[in-house]
Amino acid sequence: MRILIIGAGGVGSAAVRIAVRRPFFDALVVADYDPARPQALVDELGDPRLVAAEIDASSSSAVAAVVREHAITHVLNAVDPRFVMPIFDGCFEAGATYLDMAMSLSAPHPDHPHEQTGVMLGDEQFAAAAQWEAAGRLALVGMGVEPGLSDVFARYAEDHLFSSIEELGVRDGANLTVEGYDFAPSFSIWTTIEECLNPPVIFERDRGWFTTARFSEPEVFEFPEGIGPVECVNVEHEEVILMPRWTKARRVTFKYGLGEEFITVLRTLHTLGLDSTAPLDVKGVSVAPRDVVAAALPDPATLGDRMQGKTCAGVYVTGTGTDGAPRAVYLYHVVDNEWSMAEYNSQAVVWQTAVNPVLALELLASGAWSGSGVLGPEAFDAQPFLDLLAADAPAGYGSPWGLEERDAGAA
Amino acid sequence: MRILIIGAGGVGSAAVRIAVRRPFFDALVVADYDPARPQALVDELGDPRLVAAEIDASSSSAVAAVVREHAITHVLNAVDPRFVMPIFDGCFEAGATYLDMAMSLSAPHPDHPHEQTGVMLGDEQFAAAAQWEAAGRLALVGMGVEPGLSDVFARYAEDHLFSSIEELGVRDGANLTVEGYDFAPSFSIWTTIEECLNPPVIFERDRGWFTTARFSEPEVFEFPEGIGPVECVNVEHEEVILMPRWTKARRVTFKYGLGEEFITVLRTLHTLGLDSTAPLDVKGVSVAPRDVVAAALPDPATLGDRMQGKTCAGVYVTGTGTDGAPRAVYLYHVVDNEWSMAEYNSQAVVWQTAVNPVLALELLASGAWSGSGVLGPEAFDAQPFLDLLAADAPAGYGSPWGLEERDAGAA
Repeated sequence: MRILIIGAGGVGSAAVRIAVRRPFFDALVVADYDPARPQALVDELGDPRLVAAEIDASSSSAVAAVVREHAITHVLNAVDPRFVMPIFDGCFEAGATYLDMAMSLSAPHPDHPHEQTGVMLGDEQFAAAAQWEAAGRLALVGMGVEPGLSDVFARYAEDHLFSSIEELGVRDGANLTVEGYDFAPSFSIWTTIEECLNPPVIFERDRGWFTTARFSEPEVFEFPEGIGPVECVNVEHEEVILMPRWTKARRVTFKYGLGEEFITVLRTLHTLGLDSTAPLDVKGVSVAPRDVVAAALPDPATLGDRMQGKTCAGVYVTGTGTDGAPRAVYLYHVVDNEWSMAEYNSQAVVWQTAVNPVLALELLASGAWSGSGVLGPEAFDAQPFLDLLAADAPAGYGSPWGLEERDAGAA
Repeated sequence: MRILIIGAGGVGSAAVRIAVRRPFFDALVVADYDPARPQALVDELGDPRLVAAEIDASSSSAVAAVVREHAITHVLNAVDPRFVMPIFDGCFEAGATYLDMAMSLSAPHPDHPHEQTGVMLGDEQFAAAAQWEAAGRLALVGMGVEPGLSDVFARYAEDHLFSSIEELGVRDGANLTVEGYDFAPSFSIWTTIEECLNPPVIFERDRGWFTTARFSEPEVFEFPEGIGPVECVNVEHEEVILMPRWTKARRVTFKYGLGEEFITVLRTLHTLGLDSTAPLDVKGVSVAPRDVVAAALPDPATLGDRMQGKTCAGVYVTGTGTDGAPRAVYLYHVVDNEWSMAEYNSQAVVWQTAVNPVLALELLASGAWSGSGVLGPEAFDAQPFLDLLAADAPAGYGSPWGLEERDAGAA
């Protein structure tokens, strides 16, 4: 296997740090628009399989050229979702397997944005599914932590824990704090704005996909391992698109544990038009407000050593257990920032995102996972993934996941 | 009298619209960095006393040159407070009387910003007071509505209503709404951020000036004429600097009726660093976040015909009445946007700011007001000002003020 990771930002760099500890691949090219970033990583890690490259991720032919130049077999897209389509298309053109952690972007319904879906997340990618399948090529989409590990949990729940699923409710929460900052998001603010301010999408089997008002259905969810209660609200997320395609769940939702302060920040940015990606004339200079917001905040990938706390990704599953009785389960994965910094010099959220696509690549390398077309993580067997994640290093990734039985009556 | 108004924005334009109805001056030059703006005003109003000019308000010598070229006797500064010092200095240099509506900017105390004052509003101007006085020249500072009319009310209270004043509490509130906008400030957001996010200043006779935390001492104040209750908080404002210099009040405060939503917006902008005036590198472009916020919002001067409601400026005065009994009075001035749009094609907040310096110019022209040095509005007799404001047109400005007796026990 010869891997190309596009993007040497927080998640891309963490994926490289994780991958170099594994023997499953022959070469790993790290490419960025700024070639100094991957070069620094290559110099630091000193793994002879690593190569740094420059790439223009906005051009499918540029992506295809790098794939061909390095005889790449598998590409991991680790740049922001604006670049999904050129990388996806470049991989098809050059014959490489494609993986990403966020899908092609949505566009709201022009007339009823908070009731009906418009262009949905991944629509552009699924439009090419038949073509990928016919060519025997694989695009494994949404293979980070959320989407990604959450989708693996959904598959696991359906195959091993439930005879029928009422709801797959992804619930994401953290108790991370950053010393020295009043406000410092632990993940890309550009992406957070995108997913939180777009109309939230919900799936119901008898209704299909539909959207709601922003921050709808607030709910205090109790997160495990000391994180505790966090206010969660509906946001737009890939799982709601992916899970209904490969599971039989009656309802799929995604609620993000933003907490009150973050919700207020996002609401205010929207009210003031500062979430906009459309360039504005500011005293003769053209600039998009959302880029200004991102530039005003610290880069989340650099905050690991000032961060404290844990982040949790998981799926709250309700329905009927394999024994025929009502069941409610929270399947989850917690990363403690102290651990990820000590072990990988990566902050928790970034590390938790990056470990999953590396693990998926390892399963594709071993043949434990295989397929063709445009597939989500829940299209594959969950067991080898979860086993390898939890197994102690060096056999596995040493990062256990958890299952909490919850009160099925309350669900 | 030959007047120069610098700035043909919202307030400058309204001042011109108000002034052209008055016979007290011989010439009025309207100057702006963009000469098309005053020219449009001159063309529209068709008053032969009006002349449009171009000016660089950031240069004292450029200001002095325009003053000399047009033989200006009185200059009204109607641009944002960043330009106070060059205009103030240019007027002194060229021998013109100077008026403004906001004073030279403050800088917080370097070590204890929320306890002690640093550079105070107007400090730079008062530093030149002896020089102005020695030359027999007048700088009438803070002569808008707040500061301005509020300071006139303070003088009136001390001279006519109270034998001793416990507190002069400026209270500003409105019930304005703007159709079609979730959030549209009715006054310059640049200035609002400046005055609300700087440490609020308070004066106490036995302690001097000191500062507090942002948005301190929240209080619901009942505004008259149907505006009703509005949450007010301490902000930095010129009255707190001016009133103690010419009245004997024991305490002076300024509370702004921001309302909860606006407070949240300002807090959030500050938390995210978006209030900053320091340029930021945004993808290779240099831009100050506060300028981006201003550019993302509609220009308040253009919102008059979508606005509804009233704005109120006033001073809540507590102390001992002239009869020796406890007294509490709210002296106020309300402008209804519907009236100011119909009468002057100016929105209420802008009109209310602009009428006061024009009226002050008229009093200086008639000799009812005269003086030298750097003086606040409370250094002059309040009676002719308030009489002329309330008198029906064409004798006066047709905009009555009010006096509400309040429960002195509650004060």
